[in-house]
Amino acid sequence: MRIIICGFGVVGQSLVKLFESRSEDLYAKYGLKPRVVGVFDSKGSAVDLSGIDLEKLVAAKKKFGSVKNYSKIKNNISGLNMIKNLDADVLVETTASNYKDAEPGMTHITTAMKKKMHVISVNKGPLALAFPSLLELAAYNQVMLKFSGTVGGGTPILDYAKGSLRGERITSFAGILNGTTNYILTNMANGLSFESALKDAKNKGYVEADESLDLDGLDAAAKLVILANWIMGMKVTMPDIKCTGIRNVTTDDIKNAAKKNCAIKLLASCNRELEVGPKEVSLDDPLCVNGTLNAIAFTSEHSGTQTIIGKGAGGMETASSILRDLLDIRKEIAKN
Amino acid sequence: MRIIICGFGVVGQSLVKLFESRSEDLYAKYGLKPRVVGVFDSKGSAVDLSGIDLEKLVAAKKKFGSVKNYSKIKNNISGLNMIKNLDADVLVETTASNYKDAEPGMTHITTAMKKKMHVISVNKGPLALAFPSLLELAAYNQVMLKFSGTVGGGTPILDYAKGSLRGERITSFAGILNGTTNYILTNMANGLSFESALKDAKNKGYVEADESLDLDGLDAAAKLVILANWIMGMKVTMPDIKCTGIRNVTTDDIKNAAKKNCAIKLLASCNRELEVGPKEVSLDDPLCVNGTLNAIAFTSEHSGTQTIIGKGAGGMETASSILRDLLDIRKEIAKN
Repeated sequence: MRIIICGFGVVGQSLVKLFESRSEDLYAKYGLKPRVVGVFDSKGSAVDLSGIDLEKLVAAKKKFGSVKNYSKIKNNISGLNMIKNLDADVLVETTASNYKDAEPGMTHITTAMKKKMHVISVNKGPLALAFPSLLELAAYNQVMLKFSGTVGGGTPILDYAKGSLRGERITSFAGILNGTTNYILTNMANGLSFESALKDAKNKGYVEADESLDLDGLDAAAKLVILANWIMGMKVTMPDIKCTGIRNVTTDDIKNAAKKNCAIKLLASCNRELEVGPKEVSLDDPLCVNGTLNAIAFTSEHSGTQTIIGKGAGGMETASSILRDLLDIRKEIAKN
Repeated sequence: MRIIICGFGVVGQSLVKLFESRSEDLYAKYGLKPRVVGVFDSKGSAVDLSGIDLEKLVAAKKKFGSVKNYSKIKNNISGLNMIKNLDADVLVETTASNYKDAEPGMTHITTAMKKKMHVISVNKGPLALAFPSLLELAAYNQVMLKFSGTVGGGTPILDYAKGSLRGERITSFAGILNGTTNYILTNMANGLSFESALKDAKNKGYVEADESLDLDGLDAAAKLVILANWIMGMKVTMPDIKCTGIRNVTTDDIKNAAKKNCAIKLLASCNRELEVGPKEVSLDDPLCVNGTLNAIAFTSEHSGTQTIIGKGAGGMETASSILRDLLDIRKEIAKN
């Protein structure tokens, strides 16, 4: 299976490491032989139709800060041109999410789909801004658009709700979908001020380069858009979400909540309305997890409320979700 | 799809209610048209090849305590003879679990499979005592053996681990798999003695007719056998589980645990050894759920630890898991 990887940060690098460490097992168990034919980052690209040497690629990235130093002949083909001109089966889009125009991810994805490539996106931007039309474009071009890694990192939340709960009707859900704000709120509950808690989170590398994505709830809202479309069959995008971040949560709010045996959590919820905002959650509720954990509770018609808790982020976790998507694509292709 | 239901207690009755209330939706969405052709309970049976009138069946059971009063001509065909002589596609086995000889469920299941019927069992006995050989028998007869409802009630724990985590290696797991003992231990943590907590659980109808199944850990051990076989690919049965119940847990044990910010929970765990026993679990661990809740934490190679929490029992919840199994069987049959 020929793969192009857009973006080669933590997730992209974790993915190729996973390909390396699991290559025998993936072939023996699932018949999957991933061949990475092109990779690009913001500085340049690496191309090899017969399959890039992944160890060498990671070494080049580490040593020179870009994949363009992979071979002696520096390759300056742009990412978009690579997608346009290189034959591949699957595009893996891992560039950073933005919620203004979702570029460059949006163009990568639409260009690839028009070229009949299947797409795996862990970039939430394009999905948050245009989920319904991207799914239509995929259907029109008869390709698969997969995005398991966009919600819950390695925890297969989307798959659980759609797959494991098949035959069941989910009536509502609510979740803590952003680990960074959960970490900050947890530390505030332990006595830190917002400023100190934010500083600590930054020091630990938990905060996005654009801190607004975490603090103003945009990351959680993007995930809510994806869940609402995929699980509930809604056709919504970011502007449909009523979104409040955590900047105005005070230590007093947190103390008042504690008196009621509650904690304040940034909840993304779908219950008639789609909303992201700080809410009081009972400490006895399984949803009330601490630290950087993510949690989501699905309420179903016949099976009660079910809560899934896991690490919401991490390079290797997200890479493992890309691998799941690849296996699904492999399986679908094999059917034809 | 022609269905025989063995046992017509809470689960069987919930299932036919689900068939009734969802009939249009099941056909429109999944192409499933369940036709119940035979039902038996301990007192007799009801048969109608053109499909039993489910409303009338539930009414007869309610009024006379048995399905044998469904039609004017009382039907005394035995359950086993029904399986032997009635043509059906799927057998749904809901009789009570026992861990001595697993009868009558064991004979129902093996007879049905030899007759090329697919089997859905929510009866844990046969699986606990003979999982590996039952799967072999199913494979030999080219039928499906499904058992989603045996672990976690309506919470699709087995499916999550096997399906949603495909491509991922689960290295260990631990869970609270018996709601009754969790309820008792939770109340003991709140100050009740073992005796009072047990009495309260009995009054609420949470305790099995044979209380040993709950208190001595047999129910949890049976679920552990199913998980170990299905998720970890082990070939084990009940005697392979090191099993201790909760009868010897004292209020002192619970107080000592509380001092360490822990609670005592009956954990079923698979980490080299297969074991059921009371263990201290940190109150901060998402696994540490209270009341009748069930929880299980899967530790995977690349996606960290993921915890699923839900109601572990209930007629409608278990019926919804049977429905999931039926949909899977429907889908597989449609492929051929």
